[in-house]
Amino acid sequence: MLILSAIKRVPDDIREHFEQTFGEVEFLFCHGIEEAEEHLPKADVFVTYGEDLNKERIRAAKQLKWIMVLSAGMDRMPFNEIDKQDILVTNVRGIHAKPMAEYALSMILQVARNAKMLTQRERDHKWDRRVPMKEINNRTMVLLGTGAIAQETARLARAFQMKTIGVSRSGKSTECFDETYKVEEMDQALEAADYLVAVLPSTSGTRYLLKREHFTKMPSHSVFLNMGRGDLVKSEDILDAVRSGDVAHAVLDVFEEEPLPEDHVFWDEENITITPHLSGISPHYVPRGFDLFERNLKAYLKDDKLENVIDPKRGY
Amino acid sequence: MLILSAIKRVPDDIREHFEQTFGEVEFLFCHGIEEAEEHLPKADVFVTYGEDLNKERIRAAKQLKWIMVLSAGMDRMPFNEIDKQDILVTNVRGIHAKPMAEYALSMILQVARNAKMLTQRERDHKWDRRVPMKEINNRTMVLLGTGAIAQETARLARAFQMKTIGVSRSGKSTECFDETYKVEEMDQALEAADYLVAVLPSTSGTRYLLKREHFTKMPSHSVFLNMGRGDLVKSEDILDAVRSGDVAHAVLDVFEEEPLPEDHVFWDEENITITPHLSGISPHYVPRGFDLFERNLKAYLKDDKLENVIDPKRGY
Repeated sequence: MLILSAIKRVPDDIREHFEQTFGEVEFLFCHGIEEAEEHLPKADVFVTYGEDLNKERIRAAKQLKWIMVLSAGMDRMPFNEIDKQDILVTNVRGIHAKPMAEYALSMILQVARNAKMLTQRERDHKWDRRVPMKEINNRTMVLLGTGAIAQETARLARAFQMKTIGVSRSGKSTECFDETYKVEEMDQALEAADYLVAVLPSTSGTRYLLKREHFTKMPSHSVFLNMGRGDLVKSEDILDAVRSGDVAHAVLDVFEEEPLPEDHVFWDEENITITPHLSGISPHYVPRGFDLFERNLKAYLKDDKLENVIDPKRGY
Repeated sequence: MLILSAIKRVPDDIREHFEQTFGEVEFLFCHGIEEAEEHLPKADVFVTYGEDLNKERIRAAKQLKWIMVLSAGMDRMPFNEIDKQDILVTNVRGIHAKPMAEYALSMILQVARNAKMLTQRERDHKWDRRVPMKEINNRTMVLLGTGAIAQETARLARAFQMKTIGVSRSGKSTECFDETYKVEEMDQALEAADYLVAVLPSTSGTRYLLKREHFTKMPSHSVFLNMGRGDLVKSEDILDAVRSGDVAHAVLDVFEEEPLPEDHVFWDEENITITPHLSGISPHYVPRGFDLFERNLKAYLKDDKLENVIDPKRGY
């Protein structure tokens, strides 16, 4: 059995750990798809970030039974071809939970505590204590999405004694949420939102789900944070909501167009904070991904159930 | 019985609440000490921020039995005179716990997630995802101080799955700390500190307690945050520790000299972050202070035990 990895720069300790733990399996750690490609026809398992896969490569992978995608975004996967060849796909959904939850709390605290103004005053050597400060305890955080990332964010928010409300397709109650609503009942949740945190993936159901009128339901002091996908809401609607004062601030990590063009109006907007799609970036990413792969590989070898199995027909 | 308050801008709803709740008591809400001063000789209880008190005023307050200080810092109180006249003193120790704990987490997340660099790149319209990002989960926070503020900070740190170590005079184990050490054992704690958070008041025991050599015990990636008092450590020692790389970053909210002079070298030091003594500033300060005063007043009228009684001989 050959396990082929196209993940670049896998640390030596991880390689050695796998080779020692799974003595009966052959591992081939390649530096990217260019190096890995020639070995695809013989590989039983392929470990990849997913972006390097296309129809031709799937067709060439005659032996392939399982693709372990070390990513949560599956937008570029050739699922038709994968489905035809009946290849199992698993991903690392949830791997972003910790860094993204820390990002969310970091950013709402930054807005509540006026960090940008303080940084400016520091640059100006200006000691001025008249800086509006808010606390986040006793405020309400509404999360669009109730999956692993939203749950971890809500768990932290609750530690800050915030009230947490989740919005999901099913509206079914989920750990770490004080209340949950269905998407159709979203307006009710928005009215209570001091902070609205979007963690939705891009699917046909979430694309432009959030519309201009939704912002009018929110309190004027509210903060909108999007760390899911940029096509949840039109850029012009965010801009208009912020400029008209329907919301006080928007923190955006994802955009309709990425990279955000240098001349985009968002950059200079006082009440919009931009980060370059890094909420999920973590130095622990590869170790965590291989931890999950290890658990799955053990299950695979015992014919047990794997974690995070993807339905190629749905793409998630 | 006359209760005199020198607290400026007490909201009407608070005044009315007290007048209705304590019908048998006379209240006089004055706008600062200038207005309040003439009534001091007749006052039984004085509500104050404490900074307006001096020997002469205490001597003039012949009837005074209780001073409710709506502050936690008691540095300027004329305790000798207060002790002579056998006046009870209570303060609002712990009132800063929530805003200061949120400040601490906000600032360590800001450093871990490179917020200043991101703000600079935003200003430059520069989309660059190569920003070193750290997570704070699984890191260790050492707190100098184990009182109410340190406990609330440790409680939040624990929600982030950090390990928490407290350092105090007694070294006795306290809620929210995984380990506690005595001051004399501080070096052991410092060696483990990814984050060192100082929350100590200024007393003869804490003045310049932290010395240049202490920083050499800490990991070079560690972050020092001082939100207690500026005389915990000499400015030159902080500067030297940061410049020599003994610690990676210092976040300072308090200073030996406040306001920090405009030409102070700290302002431009890349790995020092300055905030103007605002960790405890909160829009909820006055309501919280009067909440505690109400509890204490009820106890006082029933001859029960009051919260936060200060020993005038010790000053805390």
